[in-house]
Amino acid sequence: MQSSWILAIRSVRPSRRLAPTLTFRPTCLSAPASRRCFHISSPRPQDINPAIEDMAPKAPKFEIKTPKGTRDWSGADMVLREKIFNTITNVFKRHGGVTIDTPVFELKDSCRKPHPTGKYGEDSKLIYDLADQGGELCSLRYDLTVPFARFLAMNKDISQIKRYHIAKVYRRDQPAVKKGRMREFYQCDFDIAGLYDPMIPDAEIIRIINEVFEGLGWQGKYTIKLNSRKILDGIFQVCGVPEASIRPISSAVDKLDKMPWEDVRKEMVEEKGLAPEIADKIGKYVVLKGKRDLLEQLQKDEELAANPSMQQGFADMDLLFTYLDAFNAGHSVSFDLSLARGLDYYTGVIYEVVTEGSAPKVSAASADASAEKSKKKKGKAGEDEDRSDDPTVGIGSVAAGGRYDNLVGMFSGKTQVPCVGISFGIDRIFSIMRANQAKKERKNEVDVFVMAFGGGKDFTGLLKERSEIAARLWDANIKAEFLYKVKPKLQNQFKAAEANGVPFALILGEDELAQGKIKIKEMGLPEDHPLKEGELIDLKNLTKEVQVRIERKKQLDAIVAQAEGLRVVGGIKGEDVKVEQLAKEGEGGEEVKAEN
Amino acid sequence: MQSSWILAIRSVRPSRRLAPTLTFRPTCLSAPASRRCFHISSPRPQDINPAIEDMAPKAPKFEIKTPKGTRDWSGADMVLREKIFNTITNVFKRHGGVTIDTPVFELKDSCRKPHPTGKYGEDSKLIYDLADQGGELCSLRYDLTVPFARFLAMNKDISQIKRYHIAKVYRRDQPAVKKGRMREFYQCDFDIAGLYDPMIPDAEIIRIINEVFEGLGWQGKYTIKLNSRKILDGIFQVCGVPEASIRPISSAVDKLDKMPWEDVRKEMVEEKGLAPEIADKIGKYVVLKGKRDLLEQLQKDEELAANPSMQQGFADMDLLFTYLDAFNAGHSVSFDLSLARGLDYYTGVIYEVVTEGSAPKVSAASADASAEKSKKKKGKAGEDEDRSDDPTVGIGSVAAGGRYDNLVGMFSGKTQVPCVGISFGIDRIFSIMRANQAKKERKNEVDVFVMAFGGGKDFTGLLKERSEIAARLWDANIKAEFLYKVKPKLQNQFKAAEANGVPFALILGEDELAQGKIKIKEMGLPEDHPLKEGELIDLKNLTKEVQVRIERKKQLDAIVAQAEGLRVVGGIKGEDVKVEQLAKEGEGGEEVKAEN
Repeated sequence: MQSSWILAIRSVRPSRRLAPTLTFRPTCLSAPASRRCFHISSPRPQDINPAIEDMAPKAPKFEIKTPKGTRDWSGADMVLREKIFNTITNVFKRHGGVTIDTPVFELKDSCRKPHPTGKYGEDSKLIYDLADQGGELCSLRYDLTVPFARFLAMNKDISQIKRYHIAKVYRRDQPAVKKGRMREFYQCDFDIAGLYDPMIPDAEIIRIINEVFEGLGWQGKYTIKLNSRKILDGIFQVCGVPEASIRPISSAVDKLDKMPWEDVRKEMVEEKGLAPEIADKIGKYVVLKGKRDLLEQLQKDEELAANPSMQQGFADMDLLFTYLDAFNAGHSVSFDLSLARGLDYYTGVIYEVVTEGSAPKVSAASADASAEKSKKKKGKAGEDEDRSDDPTVGIGSVAAGGRYDNLVGMFSGKTQVPCVGISFGIDRIFSIMRANQAKKERKNEVDVFVMAFGGGKDFTGLLKERSEIAARLWDANIKAEFLYKVKPKLQNQFKAAEANGVPFALILGEDELAQGKIKIKEMGLPEDHPLKEGELIDLKNLTKEVQVRIERKKQLDAIVAQAEGLRVVGGIKGEDVKVEQLAKEGEGGEEVKAEN
Repeated sequence: MQSSWILAIRSVRPSRRLAPTLTFRPTCLSAPASRRCFHISSPRPQDINPAIEDMAPKAPKFEIKTPKGTRDWSGADMVLREKIFNTITNVFKRHGGVTIDTPVFELKDSCRKPHPTGKYGEDSKLIYDLADQGGELCSLRYDLTVPFARFLAMNKDISQIKRYHIAKVYRRDQPAVKKGRMREFYQCDFDIAGLYDPMIPDAEIIRIINEVFEGLGWQGKYTIKLNSRKILDGIFQVCGVPEASIRPISSAVDKLDKMPWEDVRKEMVEEKGLAPEIADKIGKYVVLKGKRDLLEQLQKDEELAANPSMQQGFADMDLLFTYLDAFNAGHSVSFDLSLARGLDYYTGVIYEVVTEGSAPKVSAASADASAEKSKKKKGKAGEDEDRSDDPTVGIGSVAAGGRYDNLVGMFSGKTQVPCVGISFGIDRIFSIMRANQAKKERKNEVDVFVMAFGGGKDFTGLLKERSEIAARLWDANIKAEFLYKVKPKLQNQFKAAEANGVPFALILGEDELAQGKIKIKEMGLPEDHPLKEGELIDLKNLTKEVQVRIERKKQLDAIVAQAEGLRVVGGIKGEDVKVEQLAKEGEGGEEVKAEN
């Protein structure tokens, strides 16, 4: 019914499109369309299947690209992102977390219903609507919080849940691909909802943060900044900040990670009309950092101790530090009075995780694939730079969250469900790890490449034997490949294995087979390595011999990666964090072991 | 800036909303909106946080539901679906598969560009468009094939790839929730793209199908129907079917799994105008089933042997059976001349996997959450029933696919990329497994619930000790929980553990602690079990003792699950399939071992 449209498309600038970077580089994908618009030329006759030819239309002309602000994920990027997801998911599951999956689009009303932060309403122009094609009006989800609240509202029988949700959200923002601000990006939320005895879940969230970053290999390279809204508000009250100015002043304080106190003070006094002596009083408190010692110091301050909000904050933090000790989770925590968090809905503890790599300036290379997330518009200067409405992650932070006891009730309408949660900045974590791992790109996870070696005209290619060996490996759950060629050259087999970074080659030869042997060779060994030429192993022990070597190499690689990670990630700037070793278990030798 | 909108929503019919089934039942979600529309009443004053009150609007009235044809996934459904995904993903990775992630929406032109099957164009009314909010016009993806073709077109350097993609697609179809026809549903595709020596990837796909269903515990309970378009077309040519009628006649043959030959013959002769003697000749062939013996039988037919398409088909199938033997993957294969597959774009082997549970009639219970997939509109009678345009899965099949050498080139425009692939019908697999596993719902994966036991007024609740024990378990990568309560009752701790089906309780008592001991108790043991009351273990060997018991129980559960699976799934109806045991490896004792 349609005429042939087998299309042979050639590029206007073939050299550009053939650049090997095209695969993973969003910058290329967002190049001006004119450069990537393909022209259609006639098909090669031999390529045409007659059955299909009948249906094809006349050569249409269309652009081959992803929509603005979106990208494909593949290759080493995809592998790394999956690894990050797996590490995080394993931690969540270890703590009894369950995941939910909600539709990508929600009813337009649910999506556009003014957000309790007051930001959603303003920025509702960023929401993607579906076209009105009849029926309900819908919009793509803007975050994972509204769907969670809607889910809880629909499921009143769920009064307690530890839910995680790793999924894409959509914002019709002006994309900034170099900075990683995308229109389609991931959020990764873990929240403990429900009414419990105070501070236990709050402490477990911190334990979870530790497990995540240690699972990612960031041992000693991150700091969990910790504060409490109750303490912060108490300080503001004691210093004499008028009630109506507390949130604006809090927001000014929150900038202390990016600007010196003098500038913050100026904003308070000149922009926000705070009395200079009040600002100075605040200044004495908000520069303080420490651990439990700081809490004890504050508790001795009689003026603070008399403030009711402060008293609640003290009690909370006291419990929290106690529980953190029991959880062995206090080592990376910095009680930091300058941490304020932009969003208004926090009611108790607030967290923010920083690392050296999370400084706002991100190199073009590492930002390529990352979505730069920020907590909130901070006046006009920050508007271009920040994802103003992202409720999750602060500038320069790789995770952020806190307790919000009143939020879910706003959506669900049922009795409040108190919540405490953390959101990991997947894109930022990805870009930091991507920058550090750029050399070790692997396309797939194959551990063994099965090869045939033989000389002369009689060489059969041993396809049957390679297939059988591969099948035995698969039976033993070993990831394996071989070349889909009847008579492959040894060189081409090695090339294919090297291209994917496959760690082991199993090399079949007629002579060895006759003796019931096969050669196993670890790839990439130095010239002078004693096993450079490989080892002969018994075919009857094949899978065990292979498994032992894969395991051994994995353990070695993990040690090397950890050592490199320690070297690459670097220390925390401007922080005096003493990293304690996670104490070994009583029985000795047991350590934090992250599945992967 | 906005006034208070803390919402306390009460239901018009609270009893309905409180039904415990609401959580996982899409039928509830799709009940008439009027029954689920919530009214907003005033908030309880004590629930209001003053900071938030300031921003909230006056009580809006809105519906709390998911959009028509969509559902949330949570609880046991979510756990099972994730398990299925993991099993399948592990198989794909074992074979060197890599995954890609493409945006949920594509440019409207790419999406609506006429589909090579000729079906897409017709059904483009089912495509969800995004609203025109300025900028590019986009549509939600309709399948994963177009994005894959677009991806290959953008990445000309990728000439060979084994890609898998498990993701949601969108169709503005009339939803049939009971039958599982949803507007948002998953596709799960694995394709080997690239030019290779013939039939090796085709055989590996069959090996992959076996690994997936054996990984899911369906040993001996599925049949891989196999045929070749070249053989089928050869038969039609030899029988004298006019060239233009080959696809319509092929489509009639494809109905043999649902109707008797007499009806198919009638369709050929009366509806499609085929000469009765040609139909009768076809009838002699298409009822044939077998394995390699059938191929040998056909090869002896001189008339067939003279046909060029047939000769190609013979050569292909001959190679395929040889490779299947080497892969030890032939045991579930049925060479079935009645298999034709609806889609026109197949050029070589075609596959379809059936199981007893994949019969078209699905009980309401098991269909609740499944999307019924079908290969094609089969005349008017089938239109309501089938997802007419689903290129993946036939009615009654749980997976389907084949070789399509010309499809990618149509989209990408570059030199053809030959492909062979398989698509697993996730929703159908889910609903079959869900029906069989309904009793064993678990909300999370926690293995150990840490409890405290103590009597009298001096009982502290041992929160510190419970926290420390939990931390040690987490350190050892053991999934653990405890009650977020300072002084919990033992009964409530058991209740919480039972509610989630946690298999082990670790019970702390003051006396045992003093002796350096702790009690471990397997949950749900029968009254007369010797370990019913639990065992005391040394605290210093805690994690090892726990790990050993978890491992032991998992192995036992797996054996029980397999035994139950064999009982529940049942045999293949109307098929004479002899299930061979997967041959053990030479070293003995090694078997197919699926992760998870």
